[in-house]
Amino acid sequence: MTLLADLLSTVFERRYRQPAKGTKDERPAAELVQALVRATSETSGLALAADILADFATMDDDAKLAFFQDISTELNIDPEAVRSTLDDYERTPSKASYRAFMAAAEPRRQELIRRLNAVPGATGALVRMRADLLRLGRGIPALEALDLDFRHLFASWFNRGFLVLRPISWESPAHILDKIIAYEAVHAIDSWDDLRRRLQPKDRRCFAFFHPSMPDEPLIFVEVALVQGVPGSIQALLAEDRLSMPVDQVDTAVFYSISNCQAGLASISFGNSLIKQVANDLAAELPGLKTFVTLSPIPGLTGWLRDKGLEWDTTDPDSMRRLAAHYLLEGKTSKGAPYDPVARFHLGNGALVHKVHSDADTSDKGRSQSGGTMVNYLYDLEQVAQNHETFVTKGQIVASAEVTTLAEAALRSKT
Amino acid sequence: MTLLADLLSTVFERRYRQPAKGTKDERPAAELVQALVRATSETSGLALAADILADFATMDDDAKLAFFQDISTELNIDPEAVRSTLDDYERTPSKASYRAFMAAAEPRRQELIRRLNAVPGATGALVRMRADLLRLGRGIPALEALDLDFRHLFASWFNRGFLVLRPISWESPAHILDKIIAYEAVHAIDSWDDLRRRLQPKDRRCFAFFHPSMPDEPLIFVEVALVQGVPGSIQALLAEDRLSMPVDQVDTAVFYSISNCQAGLASISFGNSLIKQVANDLAAELPGLKTFVTLSPIPGLTGWLRDKGLEWDTTDPDSMRRLAAHYLLEGKTSKGAPYDPVARFHLGNGALVHKVHSDADTSDKGRSQSGGTMVNYLYDLEQVAQNHETFVTKGQIVASAEVTTLAEAALRSKT
Amino acid sequence: MTLLADLLSTVFERRYRQPAKGTKDERPAAELVQALVRATSETSGLALAADILADFATMDDDAKLAFFQDISTELNIDPEAVRSTLDDYERTPSKASYRAFMAAAEPRRQELIRRLNAVPGATGALVRMRADLLRLGRGIPALEALDLDFRHLFASWFNRGFLVLRPISWESPAHILDKIIAYEAVHAIDSWDDLRRRLQPKDRRCFAFFHPSMPDEPLIFVEVALVQGVPGSIQALLAEDRLSMPVDQVDTAVFYSISNCQAGLASISFGNSLIKQVANDLAAELPGLKTFVTLSPIPGLTGWLRDKGLEWDTTDPDSMRRLAAHYLLEGKTSKGAPYDPVARFHLGNGALVHKVHSDADTSDKGRSQSGGTMVNYLYDLEQVAQNHETFVTKGQIVASAEVTTLAEAALRSKT
Amino acid sequence: MTLLADLLSTVFERRYRQPAKGTKDERPAAELVQALVRATSETSGLALAADILADFATMDDDAKLAFFQDISTELNIDPEAVRSTLDDYERTPSKASYRAFMAAAEPRRQELIRRLNAVPGATGALVRMRADLLRLGRGIPALEALDLDFRHLFASWFNRGFLVLRPISWESPAHILDKIIAYEAVHAIDSWDDLRRRLQPKDRRCFAFFHPSMPDEPLIFVEVALVQGVPGSIQALLAEDRLSMPVDQVDTAVFYSISNCQAGLASISFGNSLIKQVANDLAAELPGLKTFVTLSPIPGLTGWLRDKGLEWDTTDPDSMRRLAAHYLLEGKTSKGAPYDPVARFHLGNGALVHKVHSDADTSDKGRSQSGGTMVNYLYDLEQVAQNHETFVTKGQIVASAEVTTLAEAALRSKT
Repeated sequence: MTLLADLLSTVFERRYRQPAKGTKDERPAAELVQALVRATSETSGLALAADILADFATMDDDAKLAFFQDISTELNIDPEAVRSTLDDYERTPSKASYRAFMAAAEPRRQELIRRLNAVPGATGALVRMRADLLRLGRGIPALEALDLDFRHLFASWFNRGFLVLRPISWESPAHILDKIIAYEAVHAIDSWDDLRRRLQPKDRRCFAFFHPSMPDEPLIFVEVALVQGVPGSIQALLAEDRLSMPVDQVDTAVFYSISNCQAGLASISFGNSLIKQVANDLAAELPGLKTFVTLSPIPGLTGWLRDKGLEWDTTDPDSMRRLAAHYLLEGKTSKGAPYDPVARFHLGNGALVHKVHSDADTSDKGRSQSGGTMVNYLYDLEQVAQNHETFVTKGQIVASAEVTTLAEAALRSKT
Repeated sequence: MTLLADLLSTVFERRYRQPAKGTKDERPAAELVQALVRATSETSGLALAADILADFATMDDDAKLAFFQDISTELNIDPEAVRSTLDDYERTPSKASYRAFMAAAEPRRQELIRRLNAVPGATGALVRMRADLLRLGRGIPALEALDLDFRHLFASWFNRGFLVLRPISWESPAHILDKIIAYEAVHAIDSWDDLRRRLQPKDRRCFAFFHPSMPDEPLIFVEVALVQGVPGSIQALLAEDRLSMPVDQVDTAVFYSISNCQAGLASISFGNSLIKQVANDLAAELPGLKTFVTLSPIPGLTGWLRDKGLEWDTTDPDSMRRLAAHYLLEGKTSKGAPYDPVARFHLGNGALVHKVHSDADTSDKGRSQSGGTMVNYLYDLEQVAQNHETFVTKGQIVASAEVTTLAEAALRSKT
Repeated sequence: MTLLADLLSTVFERRYRQPAKGTKDERPAAELVQALVRATSETSGLALAADILADFATMDDDAKLAFFQDISTELNIDPEAVRSTLDDYERTPSKASYRAFMAAAEPRRQELIRRLNAVPGATGALVRMRADLLRLGRGIPALEALDLDFRHLFASWFNRGFLVLRPISWESPAHILDKIIAYEAVHAIDSWDDLRRRLQPKDRRCFAFFHPSMPDEPLIFVEVALVQGVPGSIQALLAEDRLSMPVDQVDTAVFYSISNCQAGLASISFGNSLIKQVANDLAAELPGLKTFVTLSPIPGLTGWLRDKGLEWDTTDPDSMRRLAAHYLLEGKTSKGAPYDPVARFHLGNGALVHKVHSDADTSDKGRSQSGGTMVNYLYDLEQVAQNHETFVTKGQIVASAEVTTLAEAALRSKT
Repeated sequence: MTLLADLLSTVFERRYRQPAKGTKDERPAAELVQALVRATSETSGLALAADILADFATMDDDAKLAFFQDISTELNIDPEAVRSTLDDYERTPSKASYRAFMAAAEPRRQELIRRLNAVPGATGALVRMRADLLRLGRGIPALEALDLDFRHLFASWFNRGFLVLRPISWESPAHILDKIIAYEAVHAIDSWDDLRRRLQPKDRRCFAFFHPSMPDEPLIFVEVALVQGVPGSIQALLAEDRLSMPVDQVDTAVFYSISNCQAGLASISFGNSLIKQVANDLAAELPGLKTFVTLSPIPGLTGWLRDKGLEWDTTDPDSMRRLAAHYLLEGKTSKGAPYDPVARFHLGNGALVHKVHSDADTSDKGRSQSGGTMVNYLYDLEQVAQNHETFVTKGQIVASAEVTTLAEAALRSKT
């Protein structure tokens, strides 16, 4: 550990050191970009890259859009070059002909992004750049193609093997906790006291993935409650006056909130690793833990019922649970996937639909999106691979007998 | 720093934890490879990747060669698919058509390598795998092409922005120092006492680049002596009985040895960043440091003289210095690059030829390769970018007046 | 650093490990105390010590008082034993006779406290125990004597050489920052946002002393503002909307708040080291810093003026500054020390009275205690030793010409 | 951990920072000592203390002796002051009278040592100073008394609660490993390769106690082998070509070497905590571990047999084991304690005599001191407190039935 700890301490110290670089290159960004992809020296490359990133950081949206358009057209592939190098390679497969094909088949904007990344601290800046690109480039084919290049590189850089799982606790640095407050997307954290209630008790945990090149930025985090029995109410779980439970008495870990932090890492998936690794780590630490479930919102329920012309009796909890079960098992998109986005995520991970609860989220948001119903997805560590397989290959949703029965009852009763 | 240190400590601890995976998949590696590139679930993908890496580690050279050949042919590009997706993209440039082209133009073996890398600790295993590939695949076009895929990914993963520069000292962990001893390629370290002499005195320094995913493996390191005046003898510099010099009296930093550690990272260049960053860091720490030079071997000298039919008078130090200067400035490969590999490296970095010395390396190796002559390359931090430009664009070697004069004298005297 | 960092990480991890001790010893605390001072085995000693500390933590004030009284009488010195061992030692000075005298002259309650301290985490518990003793034992001679034993041991354990100075920043762990908020005694921190304003800007710093055995507890901390010129208003210094100043432009470090954190460490002085070490460290980091001053309250001013029958004209800032200067230079206790407690602290440290300001603290507290006036004490690092000497040996207060002139004017004008 | 790790990193960095102190005070050490005990300012006190420590470090033995003699006489107690303050206290027990007694009863040389300790890094210097005192002061009553003052303070500073247990491994810093090699006192480590064999295999462990103020200096360390079954040969245990054993198969931890590192901490006992804490930690990590034993030399055996006129038949292993058992159970000093010093240590810790082996240490040293016999002392964690009690209160040695039977057989056979 010693060296590693040490390793990383350097990164930190460097961040605060002013690079002794000379004056900024005042050419327009488009010219700097051309100079950077042609640079032969790492030294001049680094200076150019730093200047481009500094420029970009001060651009308004119009300028950013122009910048992206310039890159996407000027540094695109040349189809003729692809064809001729491909012909050469097919005719004479060799190191040289393959290298020529590779060079032609990859747009130079990928090399641009790699060279920008050589600047210390650039990885975070590139993630923010892609967030801008996603926002500004929506619906513009050339920019959507450019985004595929970013995404291709990010998938390689944010490879699971490079990520580090860290507990987040009340002993974590305040500037990290600041971001947990800012990024919580499911059940808002409304103050430092609220945060403390989610982190300090021994029966509350939080874990996040980090990348070594962005040590101040959590990528995704999950909040966990350790309890006895599968819970059916988020308000009870987060009650201010609840008593903490001794961890040697808990049997269930509840993943009650999972939040992505970086808009610029959209579609780079690491959420499913997170839940499974956290479940494994908790199981190793607390042998008494037998059950790993979520307590999840059902965001699409109300809308889907309306679309289907189904009505429910909000005074009848059983009716609501039946319809929620029906929706989760039968509600599908036009492509046959589960209609509910949260269901898609957990079922795709290999979880199963375990229980549905009425009056489980009595907040305005909960009432509005699902009439207050919530669902537990169960992560059975022995079964997730099998469940995932069943779901992906046969499109089949695995559910508990209880939920299946509820859904069938919904069909019969038509409510 | 706190979080970062913490971050990395995790990596370490995990290494020693046994993954609670089930029994190994007994299918042949080639089948596992096919299964891995087709896997839809991260969980099953991880298990397959771990099994493939474990298999590979136990293979003999024949099996490894077969493995590489299988990958290079089975997971190569399909030229027809490249052509048809390219046509589609040219006809209708869109996100979808570009994505299809990207998928076709990249051989699936790149995705294989990325998926293998998701296993904790896999990065180092892949670096060793490439070392095997370089060794076994030499001269085999398909395997040399496969190597370009490894190299392409490694250039992205070992991007300068992801590397961390660390001092190596007598307070470094023994298992790291073990590797410094093993990897020193220029002036062998023959014992722990020898190592201690190079690390413990305050006027001796060592720095290495590390990658966060290979925290136990230095990638490249440089050894530095802090002295007064530019030195002209490696034996004097490393003398067992020399006295350490107070660091507030030194004016010159001598890079007397630079060694690459990982055969599997051949052609992934980070040496020039290393010297320049170390020079910058030392300049910041010790304001008295004014001069940054190497004390370098001239490995090609004896051979080149023989080839050229030039003879020297080993009893005349001046004659030897003249011929060494002549060789360094005029000795060229058929492509016009400097004949001497060490010269190519430092001149390509923007250094200049500063001084040549006779009787500078009196070891057998030094006598044999260069008649005992050595050279100082000077890193003038203000000039390296300019020197590099001159060298790269005009093929012109920058040298001090003294060395230029020596080389000219060689021409005149023909010795 | 590596080993050290590592060292300490252990301490932390141990805190969370449940000691595998057997059942608690149910004898009354007084009996456990007797058993502990007589224990011959470290193992049984540790168990007894842990039981005593656990007992004490649950006692009410009556029980604590009884506990202290029991210790102070049962484990006091035996005057006859002191006399006879002293006679022996005087007659025959030897290792044995000296040892016997040492044993007799030290009350066994000191050994009790040392043995309690052997339990992991006990140091903090003993500091809290002394806080109770100070509170409950006031005016009871036997308990005040017992406190001298605690103080004697604490002075040894909290020796300056064992303390560690650490920056406190917005990157510090939240549970430490919690304590900064709780312990701030001069200018209350009213929210996490207020705290952030004092820690996050680059021109704001905070430093604390820690003891390695109480890593979660700051002992004392100082808050520093980096500014241009000596400031004269605490509200301006802490204004919510102020702009942060680039640290390469600051010339003055202002120690605007210094707070002791542990009631149980009363009279164990480390405040003066803190200011001087922080000043030294900042001077090394920021060569532009030339001036180190406080911006201090004058808590005794209003009361003293009233006692002296002096009145001031709150509409005349000059009159107020004159009287404040007069008070600071001439207001004395019956023993001749400065009447103002803050003045005593800084003058005893070797600071000098540099400037007085009216309307400098417009809070209710500031108006009430000093009519809003404040004072800068100047720490001239070259002069502090000399100033201290002058103050201690001659009782002479060093002040700037400006303040001296003001004080003299006060005498003349009688206002 | 984060803060703690951070805490300690500071200590380290400071060590390398030059204190910006002025010129050294050139008065003789004896005068500096007088000035230091009278100093009122911490700043001047620190400068004096640093000068005294620097002076001492350069003294030869004569000067050191003079220095010790000066301190021991000039800063001794004043018996008259002790008597009169004691009378006062007895007459009027109060805080003031008790304080006066405390001040008189403690020699000022204790305050001197505490003030010296305020200098960063001084703790180690004081430990070395006491090593000199022990060496030079032997047999001189005044210096032996002075040593009791050092010892009194060290017992407080090196209190078990302040020590940190750390694993020592092949990943530990080389400068620490250097000291392990130097300090190994039982079975010499003859090279770095030998050290590696004792640290790197997973079935070999080493643990040391450290003090936070001496992070580079282990205080005491123990080497552990994890094996199957109780071993009976040190050469087999340390064989160069042995195979490492998977740690999930081991059932026995063997403490085969325990070494004190600091001559200056003689009589400050922490050895027994070390073994017991290591045993507890290993038991928690490896649930398969059931037996904790030593494999210990019997250094006094040969000499004692000679003294007793007993002879053994070196060709008869049984005879040798019988006599060794007899010696361990019956060999006593004039005061009735076990004759063997290693036996005294482990029996005093609560271990029992478990097994004796012939031909267990075939080195020259082993042959010479015990005819090659060795002994296992067993640490039964459930029984150590009881065993200790039996040993201390009744002087009774606990032994296994096997050893008891062997010892009885020795009596019968007279061999």
